[in-house]
Amino acid sequence: MPGNSDLNIALVGCGTVGSGVVRIVQTSSDLLTQRTGRSIRLRRIVVRDPAKKRDVDLSGIPVSDDIQTVIADPDIQVVIHVVGGINPARADVTSLLEAGKDVITANKALLYAHGAELFGLAHKLGRTICFEAAVAGGIPIISAVTTALTANRIVSIEAILNGTSNFILSRMLDRRQTYEDVLTEAQARGYAEADPAMDVDGTDAAQKLSILTQLAYGTAVPLDAIVRQGIQHIELLDLLVAAELGYRVKLLATSRLSKGRLEIAVQPTLVKADRPAALTNGADNIVSIEGDAVGLMRFSGAGAGQMPTASAVMADVIDYATGRAAITFQSLQRLQSRESIPLQPQEELSRRYYLRFTVADRPHVLADIADILGRNEISISSVRQDETADVDDLSGVARLVIMTHRTTEGRLRSADAAIAKLQSLRGNRIRMPIAD
Amino acid sequence: MPGNSDLNIALVGCGTVGSGVVRIVQTSSDLLTQRTGRSIRLRRIVVRDPAKKRDVDLSGIPVSDDIQTVIADPDIQVVIHVVGGINPARADVTSLLEAGKDVITANKALLYAHGAELFGLAHKLGRTICFEAAVAGGIPIISAVTTALTANRIVSIEAILNGTSNFILSRMLDRRQTYEDVLTEAQARGYAEADPAMDVDGTDAAQKLSILTQLAYGTAVPLDAIVRQGIQHIELLDLLVAAELGYRVKLLATSRLSKGRLEIAVQPTLVKADRPAALTNGADNIVSIEGDAVGLMRFSGAGAGQMPTASAVMADVIDYATGRAAITFQSLQRLQSRESIPLQPQEELSRRYYLRFTVADRPHVLADIADILGRNEISISSVRQDETADVDDLSGVARLVIMTHRTTEGRLRSADAAIAKLQSLRGNRIRMPIAD
Repeated sequence: MPGNSDLNIALVGCGTVGSGVVRIVQTSSDLLTQRTGRSIRLRRIVVRDPAKKRDVDLSGIPVSDDIQTVIADPDIQVVIHVVGGINPARADVTSLLEAGKDVITANKALLYAHGAELFGLAHKLGRTICFEAAVAGGIPIISAVTTALTANRIVSIEAILNGTSNFILSRMLDRRQTYEDVLTEAQARGYAEADPAMDVDGTDAAQKLSILTQLAYGTAVPLDAIVRQGIQHIELLDLLVAAELGYRVKLLATSRLSKGRLEIAVQPTLVKADRPAALTNGADNIVSIEGDAVGLMRFSGAGAGQMPTASAVMADVIDYATGRAAITFQSLQRLQSRESIPLQPQEELSRRYYLRFTVADRPHVLADIADILGRNEISISSVRQDETADVDDLSGVARLVIMTHRTTEGRLRSADAAIAKLQSLRGNRIRMPIAD
Repeated sequence: MPGNSDLNIALVGCGTVGSGVVRIVQTSSDLLTQRTGRSIRLRRIVVRDPAKKRDVDLSGIPVSDDIQTVIADPDIQVVIHVVGGINPARADVTSLLEAGKDVITANKALLYAHGAELFGLAHKLGRTICFEAAVAGGIPIISAVTTALTANRIVSIEAILNGTSNFILSRMLDRRQTYEDVLTEAQARGYAEADPAMDVDGTDAAQKLSILTQLAYGTAVPLDAIVRQGIQHIELLDLLVAAELGYRVKLLATSRLSKGRLEIAVQPTLVKADRPAALTNGADNIVSIEGDAVGLMRFSGAGAGQMPTASAVMADVIDYATGRAAITFQSLQRLQSRESIPLQPQEELSRRYYLRFTVADRPHVLADIADILGRNEISISSVRQDETADVDDLSGVARLVIMTHRTTEGRLRSADAAIAKLQSLRGNRIRMPIAD
């Protein structure tokens, strides 16, 4: 429990974020004491391989590979759990809560998949879970939706929540490089995981959006209820054509109240080039939130990275040490009584779209595609075929870009299924909504 | 004291912001109860003229012109004080604290001038003062610097904090209008006060910057220690020339740690056109804060206006009702023990500058000015004279724009004093730093 004595914490996981946490605890202990009135003491560390060399000094702190050392230590009040993935994180957090420890986590996959279960357990046991670092790294967006903007009914959230995807899309356009080349470089530099699937296919952003949506609207949204597309099939051509039309392509995560229903999607999206989301480059994140009283608020900054994420973890530590975190977490329990907002069926999402097809360069292909769109009542606003320079072209293959007037996701899916059967189709089909 | 019972509040002042507060209390009571677990009840209102017609329904709430009705009511726990100016606000807040009431205020002029005294009194009496709405309206920037970013040492703050000035500068450029024309329109629409002096001369922004600086760095900065210039002498020509050079002119409030000293200024500043501050238009505010761990964070949105400001006031009410506000306010007391950071003397601020002179169109004027700059070791990077169209020109008068290389405020002040004595000078001299 918070109080005026020393605060004894344990750290489970000492990878990138964990090392950043150690660094702040060691270099800013005066700051932490000023902010909390308490001494913050790192009493135990649990890692997979205690023998591994690390770039932070852990001398004087017992390091173990066994979380039981933490669970069994009655002096530990709160545990910073910064290990990714579901297992053993789920079992760890459960055991920690049951042992009377409060938990600070940065694990959005865990919160997305088992947040309700773990929050329920914590509420039952009178424990606290803090998770500022789980969404948008150093940007205090969890704090904004759970405290600062709480006098508002949230109307919309529009965000860039995956730094890896944003880095790749920004770099492809800046350097005129292919997706594959940029990904390889990002992996070499450590900006992208060895297996980047969850980042580039929209899963990571969708998990974060689901967490924000639950907090902002009180509606639990499973991943398969989110219109979700990744960036892995976006070509440089798409970015160049979009740029010529005055847009940037961003992996946009949106949840929006519309006529009493919640529209929710994670998709590469054409955003007007002068809008703040379009200007958010590299690994940065941005979250725009509209509230009925406050209007449109924007928060941006580093959405990942060692020190920004550690900064968010330590903000949780400070909030915990002062007792604020327990109050905020209790208020989340009351919010569960909110009436859930029904989801807009995916098929009914209505937007303008950018469509791109790779087709055999032969007669009647355009006519075939236009015919299918027309039969699905999709109205074409403009058409272009491969005018952009700097694209490595395959011989005999053309790229066809079609911009539509406003239509629905359902009509497009229906048209897409028919177009996919055309013999003249080659490679991937790209469908991106255009943000208004 | 916060608890689980009803929360009885009083409202002093029912102008623009006060009416917004009434509106949220009346329309969102379910939301407030969900967030706090308590019923928030508006028990008393104090206004100058109780007979005045208002656009919110106050029926059922006792309305008085005497704050003693609130002070004497033992059921009132917290008072929302939204009256501008120093008097009687200072005496009101003092009396309220002494009567055992906690206070929520949006009055930055009061906090700037008497914050130390009022905070000291509140701390002595065990009372709480909340002031999220005092800086940047709906943007939760007080919350960010007092809670979310507290694991960081703040390195710099760069902000647009005065919506009126930003509206005027944005509109002048958009519509190619003069300062006077835009100001008149802004006053007619209620965006600018009948007496806009504090907004356009930089006082309002400097007061807000002083409050943020005290919270972020622990250093109290009086207004006369801030390099401060307003926008009232900026001409459309200045905005057009800046635009041609790739800049926007913004009334930028900055406080920055540099070599152990704090540089602090509020000045119309040339900002690269693609930077977020340059893209912040109309009455919006933006605050960029750099922390040693989190890196650069940006917060933007409505910096004023009825509902955004009321949203911030109600965020304070919710924070108060849950008990978080008291904890945060206590932590501010501990921060007073921080060592104060010395201020960089104004004369030593080093930047590139935009200079504009209105001069008699006769020989040797440029030579005279260039000579004075040279004697003050100010190196010229470019010169131009009146090439911009759309400017109503006075006959026989030319406007001369000089961009300098990096130099100091002191050298420029010295040069300016000499240039001011030139017989060929007409009208105002403009000096704006260029943000790097």
